[in-house]
Amino acid sequence: MKFTLAIAAWLISLSASALEAASPFQVNQPVIPQALADQAILLRERALIDNLPVQLVESITTEVGPRRIGTAGNQRAIAWAIAKFEQLGFDRVWTEEVPFDYGWVRGEASAEVLAPYPHDLVVTALGYSVGTDGDLDGEIIEFPTFEDLLAVPEGDSLAGKIVFISFSMADYEPPPGASAMSGYGEGTKARTKGHVEAAKRGAEAIIIRSVGTDNNRIGHTGSGYNYEDDVKKIPAAAISAPDAILLQNMLQRGLPVTVRLNLTSELTGPIAGANVIGEITGRQNPDEYLVLGAHLDSWDQGTGAIDDGAGVASMMATAAMIGRMEQRPRRSIRVILFDGEEIGLVGAAAYAKRNENEIDKYLLGAEVDAGGGRAHTLVSGVGAESLPVVEEMYKLVAPLGIAWDGRNDAKGASDMSKLSEAGMPALNLLQNSNNYFDYHHTPNDTFDKIIPQDMRYLTAAYVTLFFLAAELDVDFRH
Amino acid sequence: MKFTLAIAAWLISLSASALEAASPFQVNQPVIPQALADQAILLRERALIDNLPVQLVESITTEVGPRRIGTAGNQRAIAWAIAKFEQLGFDRVWTEEVPFDYGWVRGEASAEVLAPYPHDLVVTALGYSVGTDGDLDGEIIEFPTFEDLLAVPEGDSLAGKIVFISFSMADYEPPPGASAMSGYGEGTKARTKGHVEAAKRGAEAIIIRSVGTDNNRIGHTGSGYNYEDDVKKIPAAAISAPDAILLQNMLQRGLPVTVRLNLTSELTGPIAGANVIGEITGRQNPDEYLVLGAHLDSWDQGTGAIDDGAGVASMMATAAMIGRMEQRPRRSIRVILFDGEEIGLVGAAAYAKRNENEIDKYLLGAEVDAGGGRAHTLVSGVGAESLPVVEEMYKLVAPLGIAWDGRNDAKGASDMSKLSEAGMPALNLLQNSNNYFDYHHTPNDTFDKIIPQDMRYLTAAYVTLFFLAAELDVDFRH
Repeated sequence: MKFTLAIAAWLISLSASALEAASPFQVNQPVIPQALADQAILLRERALIDNLPVQLVESITTEVGPRRIGTAGNQRAIAWAIAKFEQLGFDRVWTEEVPFDYGWVRGEASAEVLAPYPHDLVVTALGYSVGTDGDLDGEIIEFPTFEDLLAVPEGDSLAGKIVFISFSMADYEPPPGASAMSGYGEGTKARTKGHVEAAKRGAEAIIIRSVGTDNNRIGHTGSGYNYEDDVKKIPAAAISAPDAILLQNMLQRGLPVTVRLNLTSELTGPIAGANVIGEITGRQNPDEYLVLGAHLDSWDQGTGAIDDGAGVASMMATAAMIGRMEQRPRRSIRVILFDGEEIGLVGAAAYAKRNENEIDKYLLGAEVDAGGGRAHTLVSGVGAESLPVVEEMYKLVAPLGIAWDGRNDAKGASDMSKLSEAGMPALNLLQNSNNYFDYHHTPNDTFDKIIPQDMRYLTAAYVTLFFLAAELDVDFRH
Repeated sequence: MKFTLAIAAWLISLSASALEAASPFQVNQPVIPQALADQAILLRERALIDNLPVQLVESITTEVGPRRIGTAGNQRAIAWAIAKFEQLGFDRVWTEEVPFDYGWVRGEASAEVLAPYPHDLVVTALGYSVGTDGDLDGEIIEFPTFEDLLAVPEGDSLAGKIVFISFSMADYEPPPGASAMSGYGEGTKARTKGHVEAAKRGAEAIIIRSVGTDNNRIGHTGSGYNYEDDVKKIPAAAISAPDAILLQNMLQRGLPVTVRLNLTSELTGPIAGANVIGEITGRQNPDEYLVLGAHLDSWDQGTGAIDDGAGVASMMATAAMIGRMEQRPRRSIRVILFDGEEIGLVGAAAYAKRNENEIDKYLLGAEVDAGGGRAHTLVSGVGAESLPVVEEMYKLVAPLGIAWDGRNDAKGASDMSKLSEAGMPALNLLQNSNNYFDYHHTPNDTFDKIIPQDMRYLTAAYVTLFFLAAELDVDFRH
């Protein structure tokens, strides 16, 4: 029965379209003109077999590699981005400086168990940790969660100790209704604030189980400058998941466990990076902007393939593919590659401040900062009047396996949150994780983790949506 | 129909057994007395819920850790094994020295790409590599396989170069009929002989893609003292799989790729370890031996959980569980924990030589050196007359999900190959890999990779088989 109805609907739609337009493929689209929908479909299908996003992520990971703000790699990344935007035919390419008051030298990190059983541990300094000034030896005191540390009264009860927060993201069970990834948020509490809270209780240092979902002898780094003025700065490091389990197995024997930590990390004075912006300038309404974001910087252990080479590549490729069409889109499309995301959205904040007077002309923004996985769901945060348009746009990406549930409460993701706060409407594609938190902030974040077909699917979805948004005479603002 | 026949067969077997013995559970077993089969079944079921093998692997990985022959960890492992055998109630516990002419200090290893794009590489020295005597810089020359290197005529055509063998075990497709794991054998050609063949062609050093199946920024070590007297000793190291791919991506650009290698490894003079042997002495035929082998040493990057803590633990637990029964088994069961397996079956060779006059009394031998995965297939290498007995023994482990195809050409595995060469019959359980070659010879070989239920299943199978072999008056020899 369903089949019969479907055929009937199709025949009706065919006969209706025959009256309205020349296209033999027309379907009932009240908002999107058929010729435009046809163009979007062809663009989408071309993107599915265009390897440009994969080539771009291969290029930045191979030719640039790690690119933390304040490092030589970051400067190489800025030069790479400028050159790529130019090669890809963007109409305008420029940089905007991203200054930050504090720099950081990672240095070397080592840790070992001294007693009861000697063992080397795999450890990585957390971002902006101070060094240990030589070997720092102390008994470790385990806290299963950050909240368990907070439950200790401030004072000096942890004097001479090393706090060990053993929270495992991999074993975390989200409460009903919470996202499967909410364990990341739980884990980052200790990563960003643990050293301050441990210091307030007299501890000499803090080690945390790496915030991740893997079982590798590899540490997950992270965090920016999160000190409080009147709290002593103590060293903070992440040990690998297997080493955290080893410490727990020792502690279960009821014996004191003493660890030696040695970090040669150092805080330094001011640094600067740059946001790099490339624009495909609109043919008709050049001062109406659609903005595509990703972050140019990465952590410094891997080559930043999934975080956020995949975002840089898919967003550059999205605009470049639209820019390859016969004519420029009606509106301008701007790709903003933010610097300093990893140390706390520093580049995004600088961009939002510097451009605060024009953000009301940003009709729609999206960011990719979740790896190169396929999109599974479209969510929006647009003015209520334009939601039916988003639904029609959605229908043209639905064949890519993307769902839509009408949710319209999305905010800008990652860097774009700063522009979202300034009023920018958001259109986000939620992505398959492709084991994102196995690799995130580790030496394992390398090009081989990119799944080429997935990156093409992701880019095809953005190309379709932003081509349509650039051509339609629709205001997506609230 | 099948169902009806099965019920009929069961009824026949029941009535037959009622005439023969008191056990209400008797089945048609021409070789194994019913009372003995019942004991074996109860022992098997008890082993399935006995966590002893898991506790033992946790103990050796936590309390000892890395234990390469010639290191302090190896001495701790020897002391651990003696103490455990005694705690577990073995009747005799002793050590036999394992001397070796060459020792090795791992030292530090680093590698970086100097040009065309600066990158740090993750590298590990291969066992017994010489050091680089400071920074060793050279252009890398890629050879897809070891055979491609051999195709270069001996001489000095690779003078000043670093050989790079990019063979990928993960991507290897075995030829028809070959085992899925034959890629490991292919990979180890370059690991064990690459440095000699590269030196014969004038190269300064060799780097290989790690022999493994993972995608981690972790190097797989391996290899013993494999030098040829009149060939220059050159440094040999393994880079991680993602770094091998990075180098290949650079080479695809047609640019020379220069790498700096720095290994502080050193060869030293003679070392010694020890085989540790524990015996449950037979009550009736104490000079008929069943031998259970595993290797006590490990590589030095991880804690040797799967290689070969799992073997040590399952074999110790197998004999200990038989030793906990009301009376000693009829024959003796000897657990031999070999030292120096990783550098070339050195302990096994020493054992075979020292005990050459008694190996003809070894009626059956098995070794676990493939991780803690469940057994999937039983294979034997016994005298043809005893094969029907093995088939009956097999029926009592079949409920553990183990297959049997009557193959009777098995040789002793790993260390046991040395005793097999001296005539010892073999009974091997082939195991599920549980991603063995993801972790093998890496820092990732840690306790968290052990799957407790699998270790209990594996041990239950060995307990059942060796209890039966110890009680049956059957000669398994050829």
